[in-house]
Amino acid sequence: MDILQRGISINDKYLNPLQHHVYQPLKGFREFTDEAMASRNRVIEILKGVPQRFGFREIDIPSIEPLEIFKLKSGDEIVQQTFSFVDKGGREVTLIPETTPTVARLVASASKARQMPIKWYSFTKLWRYEEPQSGRFREFYQLNVDTFGSPDVRADAELIAVAAGILKALGLSPDVRIHISDRRLIDGYLDHVKAQDKRAVMRILDKRDKISSDEMKEMLSSTGLSRDVVETLCSLISIKGGIDDRLPEVESILGQSDATRRMSALSEMIEWYEVPEVCELDLGIVRGLDYYTSFIMEAHDIRGEYRALFGGGRYDELVSLFGGPSTPAVGFAIGDAILEILMRRAGTWDQGPLRTDCMVAVTDDSMYMHAVRLASRLREKGMIVETDLMRKKLARQLSYASAINARWVIIVGPREWSEKKVTLRNMKTGEQRSLTIDEAIDNVLKDT
Amino acid sequence: MDILQRGISINDKYLNPLQHHVYQPLKGFREFTDEAMASRNRVIEILKGVPQRFGFREIDIPSIEPLEIFKLKSGDEIVQQTFSFVDKGGREVTLIPETTPTVARLVASASKARQMPIKWYSFTKLWRYEEPQSGRFREFYQLNVDTFGSPDVRADAELIAVAAGILKALGLSPDVRIHISDRRLIDGYLDHVKAQDKRAVMRILDKRDKISSDEMKEMLSSTGLSRDVVETLCSLISIKGGIDDRLPEVESILGQSDATRRMSALSEMIEWYEVPEVCELDLGIVRGLDYYTSFIMEAHDIRGEYRALFGGGRYDELVSLFGGPSTPAVGFAIGDAILEILMRRAGTWDQGPLRTDCMVAVTDDSMYMHAVRLASRLREKGMIVETDLMRKKLARQLSYASAINARWVIIVGPREWSEKKVTLRNMKTGEQRSLTIDEAIDNVLKDT
Repeated sequence: MDILQRGISINDKYLNPLQHHVYQPLKGFREFTDEAMASRNRVIEILKGVPQRFGFREIDIPSIEPLEIFKLKSGDEIVQQTFSFVDKGGREVTLIPETTPTVARLVASASKARQMPIKWYSFTKLWRYEEPQSGRFREFYQLNVDTFGSPDVRADAELIAVAAGILKALGLSPDVRIHISDRRLIDGYLDHVKAQDKRAVMRILDKRDKISSDEMKEMLSSTGLSRDVVETLCSLISIKGGIDDRLPEVESILGQSDATRRMSALSEMIEWYEVPEVCELDLGIVRGLDYYTSFIMEAHDIRGEYRALFGGGRYDELVSLFGGPSTPAVGFAIGDAILEILMRRAGTWDQGPLRTDCMVAVTDDSMYMHAVRLASRLREKGMIVETDLMRKKLARQLSYASAINARWVIIVGPREWSEKKVTLRNMKTGEQRSLTIDEAIDNVLKDT
Repeated sequence: MDILQRGISINDKYLNPLQHHVYQPLKGFREFTDEAMASRNRVIEILKGVPQRFGFREIDIPSIEPLEIFKLKSGDEIVQQTFSFVDKGGREVTLIPETTPTVARLVASASKARQMPIKWYSFTKLWRYEEPQSGRFREFYQLNVDTFGSPDVRADAELIAVAAGILKALGLSPDVRIHISDRRLIDGYLDHVKAQDKRAVMRILDKRDKISSDEMKEMLSSTGLSRDVVETLCSLISIKGGIDDRLPEVESILGQSDATRRMSALSEMIEWYEVPEVCELDLGIVRGLDYYTSFIMEAHDIRGEYRALFGGGRYDELVSLFGGPSTPAVGFAIGDAILEILMRRAGTWDQGPLRTDCMVAVTDDSMYMHAVRLASRLREKGMIVETDLMRKKLARQLSYASAINARWVIIVGPREWSEKKVTLRNMKTGEQRSLTIDEAIDNVLKDT
């Protein structure tokens, strides 16, 4: 509170020369007034509510961390993509670009005293210093959902169910597919054929949607892979569809393995959760992060207009990287901005107006005391209620009630009040009735 | 998502030398695991819910802003108290230390298209580079509640009602008093007696609780005030108590004025809101900010153990400072950290455990499909339900259910299942019953 409590004078020297800077938010940063926020809050309720019902618990983490913990996970390159700086105490710090290192640290210290699994979610702001574009901001929110301590395919399946549940609740399941793979499949094959530069191969495979098949083959060959291997790789990454349908094809090329058996079990469980229709096998997804160890998933717009909505997978070695005990982990993350774009396209973004249950209006200043008390009674029942703060005439109070989308207006006037009555106006129909105070309150409580 | 999608390898060069840095959050920053967050979420629900019921609407603002907008309001001194830095684009920016400049900017652009008043709240993280101490962190949350567009005392009274409603809902009303004044009272008197250095006088008055009466008189005299004026000032700032009780005393010294008449109206309204018992007149509160124009309030711990909980007041000139139309405004802000300390002292901080409605356990791997489907049915009804992700033995599943505070466990075993039955265990009493599936579900839905 110190800044507020010190007597510091308003400084007008900045007013004129910097006016054009001062009144704009920074590039890539958003601000939301009440109506925009009402729409967003409905989405946030879903993003939090679905994992909640699966027993995931909310956690909250610092927005600034030592830069080292991100270098540790992602290498020095991360610095260029972060809002990092040296703080006034000389510490090299950064606004967090992702939550995983912090959450891994929290698990490392919490896991000693706990029964596994630990199931956590967070919904926090992240910051990345990147060029803003459609669906990508420098400041955004991200839901992270993670299960720690279970190496079992059950945990993978549950996370897919959470992700699919969110898509369904947002009205996006017709438009989005969750692509599923196991990074040991392609990786294992590349090991098997003794590929020289796996990293380069992965980078090329990741370009699948951007280059032609011939271009891809040429690029793959240039890494030293034989013509047969290139053909096989191209066959593998073109396998896409229902897991049960397409898994035999994978097995016919790669043989059975832990990875294919686990995929088969996953497919069965996805049916139990009744979400197979939003899932598909896709050996071509190459989530860049080296720390994924087996199961990976990535959600794609079926029309291909936008980049991946979200991604995740199993990262069994990350907690130990941060000094914790060896702890299997599986998780995914969804950013808020791309969701809004897809929901708007799908027509499921709710532009619904603000909710107000009742406005208590007065015909006369002397009635304001009664309006305040009546409003308090309704608020005690959880209603959203406003009174006139401007001493407006009745007609303008009604106009304001309409602007805030009030469902009801109770009008308090001296003559009626002396008979212990008020006028209840239904703002949808315009119908007005003279009722006792209790009748009016009951009406508002019953239908809001 | 770019950072995640690029193949960047885990970099172990940071592991050893920096281990002691890496695994600690920064000084003055907090992190909250699930149980701590559950306690906090109950408080957040109150902090948001009370203003919501008065029709205040949530907004959300950027966490980083051009540093100029804070200099504009608070002068260059602000820089030393902020997490400010030059971003990668060469912009002088800062993590926001308060919300007012941003909100004023938002109002300035939103107010053209709107009916007044605009009633907004935000609950956001703020950052201040100050020495951390009890109840003061470098990163904290703050609730801000503001009414724009109404110059009326009704708006002031409503904000006091919101603040008092929050204190009551948090169980703090016995421990906290909202001290109320009008800055024109002392200010007007100092103008009247032609005080040379009003700012110095205010700073001295602000030390009221830290120095003796004699020390204060001596310091006040040293600013050039006459002995009579010093005596009068000391009388004025010692006036404390019920507004109606003490206002006549103020009037006997200062005469009637707009400020005393407004205070009298405020006192009347506070009674309508039924919160006079938490309010008192206190001419000694000197909120430092020059931008307050009349009504000011500050909430104090009645035991005097902690600094002010929150403060606020009327600031009719700030929106125009940010280029908006002249817009009266009144608001207050509450930080989260001091609330937790006071609630712990008052015994109202809820250390309640996590909520889980039901765990669906299995006696046998083959039953897991049924457990998953049963869990889905309960989740569709909004229940918080977990299944076993670890293939634990039944006894250990029950132990986990107890650790997550599950109210019920449904045990699915092959023999019972073949008769379309399950065992329902009440985790409070340990009682177990064999029931049909629908009966078990009904029981869980009814009593969670």
